Amino acid sequence: MKKFISSRASGLEKAQWILMGLPLDSTVSRQPGSSKGPQVIRDESWSLETFSFCLEKDLENIGFVDIGDLVLQCRPVDVALDVIYKVAKHFFKKGKKVLSFGGEHLVSYGVIKAAAEINPGLCVVHLDAHADLRDTYHGEKFTHATVMRRVAEECLDTPQSLFQFGIRSGTSEEYEWARKHTRLFAGNDILPAFEKTISKLKDKPIYISLDIDVFDPSVAPGTGTPEPGGISNYMELFRFIKKMEHLNVIGMDIVEVSPLLDINNITSVLAAKIARDALLLWGVEKVV
Amino acid sequence: MKKFISSRASGLEKAQWILMGLPLDSTVSRQPGSSKGPQVIRDESWSLETFSFCLEKDLENIGFVDIGDLVLQCRPVDVALDVIYKVAKHFFKKGKKVLSFGGEHLVSYGVIKAAAEINPGLCVVHLDAHADLRDTYHGEKFTHATVMRRVAEECLDTPQSLFQFGIRSGTSEEYEWARKHTRLFAGNDILPAFEKTISKLKDKPIYISLDIDVFDPSVAPGTGTPEPGGISNYMELFRFIKKMEHLNVIGMDIVEVSPLLDINNITSVLAAKIARDALLLWGVEKVV
Amino acid sequence: MKKFISSRASGLEKAQWILMGLPLDSTVSRQPGSSKGPQVIRDESWSLETFSFCLEKDLENIGFVDIGDLVLQCRPVDVALDVIYKVAKHFFKKGKKVLSFGGEHLVSYGVIKAAAEINPGLCVVHLDAHADLRDTYHGEKFTHATVMRRVAEECLDTPQSLFQFGIRSGTSEEYEWARKHTRLFAGNDILPAFEKTISKLKDKPIYISLDIDVFDPSVAPGTGTPEPGGISNYMELFRFIKKMEHLNVIGMDIVEVSPLLDINNITSVLAAKIARDALLLWGVEKVV
Amino acid sequence: MKKFISSRASGLEKAQWILMGLPLDSTVSRQPGSSKGPQVIRDESWSLETFSFCLEKDLENIGFVDIGDLVLQCRPVDVALDVIYKVAKHFFKKGKKVLSFGGEHLVSYGVIKAAAEINPGLCVVHLDAHADLRDTYHGEKFTHATVMRRVAEECLDTPQSLFQFGIRSGTSEEYEWARKHTRLFAGNDILPAFEKTISKLKDKPIYISLDIDVFDPSVAPGTGTPEPGGISNYMELFRFIKKMEHLNVIGMDIVEVSPLLDINNITSVLAAKIARDALLLWGVEKVV
Amino acid sequence: MKKFISSRASGLEKAQWILMGLPLDSTVSRQPGSSKGPQVIRDESWSLETFSFCLEKDLENIGFVDIGDLVLQCRPVDVALDVIYKVAKHFFKKGKKVLSFGGEHLVSYGVIKAAAEINPGLCVVHLDAHADLRDTYHGEKFTHATVMRRVAEECLDTPQSLFQFGIRSGTSEEYEWARKHTRLFAGNDILPAFEKTISKLKDKPIYISLDIDVFDPSVAPGTGTPEPGGISNYMELFRFIKKMEHLNVIGMDIVEVSPLLDINNITSVLAAKIARDALLLWGVEKVV
Amino acid sequence: MKKFISSRASGLEKAQWILMGLPLDSTVSRQPGSSKGPQVIRDESWSLETFSFCLEKDLENIGFVDIGDLVLQCRPVDVALDVIYKVAKHFFKKGKKVLSFGGEHLVSYGVIKAAAEINPGLCVVHLDAHADLRDTYHGEKFTHATVMRRVAEECLDTPQSLFQFGIRSGTSEEYEWARKHTRLFAGNDILPAFEKTISKLKDKPIYISLDIDVFDPSVAPGTGTPEPGGISNYMELFRFIKKMEHLNVIGMDIVEVSPLLDINNITSVLAAKIARDALLLWGVEKVV
Repeated sequence: MKKFISSRASGLEKAQWILMGLPLDSTVSRQPGSSKGPQVIRDESWSLETFSFCLEKDLENIGFVDIGDLVLQCRPVDVALDVIYKVAKHFFKKGKKVLSFGGEHLVSYGVIKAAAEINPGLCVVHLDAHADLRDTYHGEKFTHATVMRRVAEECLDTPQSLFQFGIRSGTSEEYEWARKHTRLFAGNDILPAFEKTISKLKDKPIYISLDIDVFDPSVAPGTGTPEPGGISNYMELFRFIKKMEHLNVIGMDIVEVSPLLDINNITSVLAAKIARDALLLWGVEKVV
Repeated sequence: MKKFISSRASGLEKAQWILMGLPLDSTVSRQPGSSKGPQVIRDESWSLETFSFCLEKDLENIGFVDIGDLVLQCRPVDVALDVIYKVAKHFFKKGKKVLSFGGEHLVSYGVIKAAAEINPGLCVVHLDAHADLRDTYHGEKFTHATVMRRVAEECLDTPQSLFQFGIRSGTSEEYEWARKHTRLFAGNDILPAFEKTISKLKDKPIYISLDIDVFDPSVAPGTGTPEPGGISNYMELFRFIKKMEHLNVIGMDIVEVSPLLDINNITSVLAAKIARDALLLWGVEKVV
Repeated sequence: MKKFISSRASGLEKAQWILMGLPLDSTVSRQPGSSKGPQVIRDESWSLETFSFCLEKDLENIGFVDIGDLVLQCRPVDVALDVIYKVAKHFFKKGKKVLSFGGEHLVSYGVIKAAAEINPGLCVVHLDAHADLRDTYHGEKFTHATVMRRVAEECLDTPQSLFQFGIRSGTSEEYEWARKHTRLFAGNDILPAFEKTISKLKDKPIYISLDIDVFDPSVAPGTGTPEPGGISNYMELFRFIKKMEHLNVIGMDIVEVSPLLDINNITSVLAAKIARDALLLWGVEKVV
Repeated sequence: MKKFISSRASGLEKAQWILMGLPLDSTVSRQPGSSKGPQVIRDESWSLETFSFCLEKDLENIGFVDIGDLVLQCRPVDVALDVIYKVAKHFFKKGKKVLSFGGEHLVSYGVIKAAAEINPGLCVVHLDAHADLRDTYHGEKFTHATVMRRVAEECLDTPQSLFQFGIRSGTSEEYEWARKHTRLFAGNDILPAFEKTISKLKDKPIYISLDIDVFDPSVAPGTGTPEPGGISNYMELFRFIKKMEHLNVIGMDIVEVSPLLDINNITSVLAAKIARDALLLWGVEKVV
Repeated sequence: MKKFISSRASGLEKAQWILMGLPLDSTVSRQPGSSKGPQVIRDESWSLETFSFCLEKDLENIGFVDIGDLVLQCRPVDVALDVIYKVAKHFFKKGKKVLSFGGEHLVSYGVIKAAAEINPGLCVVHLDAHADLRDTYHGEKFTHATVMRRVAEECLDTPQSLFQFGIRSGTSEEYEWARKHTRLFAGNDILPAFEKTISKLKDKPIYISLDIDVFDPSVAPGTGTPEPGGISNYMELFRFIKKMEHLNVIGMDIVEVSPLLDINNITSVLAAKIARDALLLWGVEKVV
Repeated sequence: MKKFISSRASGLEKAQWILMGLPLDSTVSRQPGSSKGPQVIRDESWSLETFSFCLEKDLENIGFVDIGDLVLQCRPVDVALDVIYKVAKHFFKKGKKVLSFGGEHLVSYGVIKAAAEINPGLCVVHLDAHADLRDTYHGEKFTHATVMRRVAEECLDTPQSLFQFGIRSGTSEEYEWARKHTRLFAGNDILPAFEKTISKLKDKPIYISLDIDVFDPSVAPGTGTPEPGGISNYMELFRFIKKMEHLNVIGMDIVEVSPLLDINNITSVLAAKIARDALLLWGVEKVV
């Protein structure tokens, strides 16, 4: 299996960031395929350079190891979530940061649960087209459509620690629940929304959960439930995460990339670039 | 056949809005396929929610019925247009509003003819990449390239009642004719253009004819004649139609969606979202 | 072979602009297919009108001849470049201007070498996602990844005559080299960057080399190495080239369109529209 | 949801055959997408005629009802299998026959378990490229790669009641197990193989489980794990099932159709034709 | 527009065969796109050689002219059929033979009507998956589903002059009508069927109408209504038409190729090869 | 880079077979993309089992090492061919056998030249749709269309050592040259042709060069120049190579697989299966 560009072949102990793939795809609604996301994102990372013109940093100088995909295939959802949780917790305990590629959005639950246990007061920055705040979906508690409700209720100190950006779709119940409990910033202008609230994130451990459908379908067509009206250009997201450069980001996931539904893998390239820039932003650069 | 999300199974008499599919595709120039538009737009409407975060309204509370597709297949163009005209007139007469999915743009002629006969002083808001103002095309009077000329000349009180936005393609003859006769606002900045002219639409019955290629091909690739330089994000269009929220919109069509030419049906999802928001904007909400 | 829309069938002698296809595709890195670019761009030019609403000019009034594709197939790269160079020089010598369709970016070397020999003091406006400034690539001097380094070193009076816009990818070595030697304006806001430097282009002969991946992958998915974060709409590019309307543009190329990787040929339509507007901007209009 | 062509709108009580969709897709190995199979097979059934030239019978005269898809989405695999089992048993108990569309091959387990409980001595005719006889797969007992092992061990009186045709792929362990326990006829010449063993099926209740990848990938490209060397033409399969016309076939499934991986839905049309002909072969024709 | 490989640029008067495109696509049922057939078949003819190993003849020695496409776009069906009829008659009158590329199958009516008027006693060899013998379709008399009924009733001396091969789909009414009136040979073994009846074609003028869906969808996926169970390899068709080498074939059409629905244009290449071999079989070879 | 299934991670010295990728794609005529062949064939090998039901052998017991791709990218054709030649010769000298994945057919020249120098009296079994016997192509001596002419003239003792099967396309000049010099067996019935000539291959070292387009386009659509009328099923080829099981096969290549042009990678899976079975046929099985 091809690793993410510039991943160290060894040195897991010293690595500051751990990259892993979470190819779970069992609760999809419209179109399947996100289990293929992690591998294609890695493959496409090789069409990028390791150096960023915007950040003037090089991934070659960042200590991270891509440990490959967790084996989630054929496993019941509860078992799969438990595997994710345990692996993530193992690394968070050692003080490492974790970057994951989904898979469907449900995988975030496993990672965030681990992150919150190790990092008291964890805040989640949730970028998505959909609120993912249903209580149940098709009668189930753990699905891609309920994942942030579970995170808000079970993982975080308070749903107020869930900061939602880019959201433009949900039921009226989700909308009401969000207004009462979470910090939801609807619409596609994520930057001004962020500026209003960023002070609340200072001095807190932060986990970023990014569903690729927060982008407009033109920019990220390769996803299961494209929703018109999202972020129109990678630079808008870049400016958003750049604002958090000096905050305490301890983990991130990029989920719902479905290569089968894409054109020329542009959605996977996009995910790879986000991952590269995240590692550059929050990885410690070694002097060469 | 799957109906549009949230369509009532019955209650045609009470419904305020009628939704119908007009799968005509007989005069195409570059690529065929718009006859498949109505069904795929309906299918994809199910990937949306019935509730809108922007409008804070729910389609479940709007009275509309999707009556399915008119049978236009294999029919000569003049017969097909006459079928459309008669069905539309039947509903307009009863005081209903009509939302149609094309099919090629020519279908608008049938609906607008009916609309104008029932609603004196009808104004047409035409959103399109192409002027559609040729006098003839391949020697024919009734084609997708001549449809707005026919509308302007035969259906409306005056070509001045034709308001054209987003137009960025046409022959020099069409350009000259538009400058003399219609209200053409060229270019892709549709919102400032609209603000200049909206006062002229007050107190008038309004019909909106939206060719999906008014969007940039990145946003709406699934269409027969994509023209670079259009609207770059659904929110731009939303703000445009939101301006008309309190005007007297009595009908609308969304045409030229060609699912065969699309990627992951993003063009059909876009059309479905426009339709949902149109019903929310101009449908009367019942108190539940 | 279908010619570009509105190309004269004869009159090569009198034509001011020569259009030619350069279907070279031998040094690709991620995905092949640009050798098919010239023909599909021509085919799709027929879905445009000859008239531009923005420029109020008609291609029917511009004197240009599409001479078809040079025979580069199966030829060694050095031979192919030499063929391109000789043909281009032949036309530049006669005072004509040359518009080329790639093929891979390496083809620009042949044309620019000829252009610079005939036009002392030539400046190159380079629009691209990638710097293309490596010294060697896989050990080779002449590749799509080294082409602008070769142009800067071998064709121009000084690397300072190379003006680079839209660049957002490269190695740290390329970045350093650019900062020392060329005029590189990184990022996707090309218009303000251009305004800062346009005075330096006055009274100089100018050649424009446009790699289609300067656009965001949403707008131009059909290319070999899509890089997120580029120009989001054709109108942004149009305003950029419109700024040069009255400058002395003596040649242009549009390269790296790969129809095999595209959706509904939207990248080829985009390239065709750029070409049409370039001919309208810098072609002399005859009074009809 | 569109029903299979010619399905009765009502009359479940009187219907001899029940058709149902089983959109489970949770244990895939190479490529996902079979959850979309049932709906696209139904949609494409409408491109067929109800009458068969080969059988001189018309589906309009066959009593069957398409009850739509079972709700398996988001459910754990064991729950999903239990749902399938209970619904199937409900119908088998009433003396009905059941035709199912997968979904992944694992769904067959639920139906066959029910069929075997109601029909003692049940024989399974298994058409597939793969033996599906592993004991475990990724540590799990219930997957698409172990389903026939489970059927042989848990549902049937003896593994000797499992007749396997078209099989051309498996591990050496599966091969050994099959040679010892089941009746495996390897290779793509299914008709002569069948003739050798058909006498053993006389007077037995028979269930047919058909994985679409028993066909060569040229004929059925739209499936998760295409294996070269299969049945080359629908007529070969037709002659095979025609041999069983007068046998006691009490149920059938057609699984592993993945529309996302297909071209022009030819695999779904194939599955629809098999289903139509199965209903014609084993449905009682009413005199009209 | 690119002409068929080896077509003479001039010499229409002397040419024995006329090739023309008939891009009509107005009465489709399942999927559109056959209007693009003629051009793509021509384009792909250039991937073949002009020489045939099986026939040991070279197209360079055959006198034929490709006159391009008739202008049928935007025209009402009756007008389009009349155009086809008149052009075909013009050539038949001069003693020429006509090879046409559809477009939908309805185009055959125009050509056959002309052929039959000039060639008394004309027999039609009809290769197709579908009988095309409905009396009406969606209430219309002239459609792709009724075309051979119209040919049998209106163009030929007797329906007995219609020889149908490869047919495997139709309504029970079509089946009954065919058994009473035409010579229908159902099933995919076209060669033995042909041998039984070839004697009846001796000394008669023969027109061949080939719907590409007579092939199995694996071989010809790019067509509107693929029907499993057809001819599995081009060589089977070649042997069939080779049997007619010394018969009096005066015209042929190849219809229903839909490039939009195809993979790598293999259906268009197939059509081009049939056309090449038809010209080699029934064209007079000049001694070079 | 993913290796071929079951490739040893080490043990190059002891390995009997060497597998290598030759991603050259510089002289294509119709469509590019074969440079992506080696990697996708390897990826898809993992969807096969290591065990063969037909041969009752397991790849786990065969000693071979996949050394990855040679670096041919951006290199001039003559340099690339020299690299291939030298690497192949290195291995042949050590008594190893070489299995290569193209890339375009020209790569075979480098390997065969090396093979013939080490193995006097080498015979080449050439499976292809095209004769590849032109003397020059676009003026060049070394291209995919001339490669077997070069092999026959420069590498082999005599052109009579070139045995060509499945050939069905070529110019009249190629046909004449083949009839005079090589052993060409035209047509798609490769097995009877082979039986006639197999005695001439006994006791000779044999190299097999297989262009994937020897198969019918239905079976192998993913190739640059599909030619209708080829081998219809993998089993036909399997029986052909099985005939050579006990002959002295010292090398093989599988070329012209173009993943970009394929559907669901079925052409790559086919190539992988041929490679697996070749290793099983001619690799020495170790007792486990």
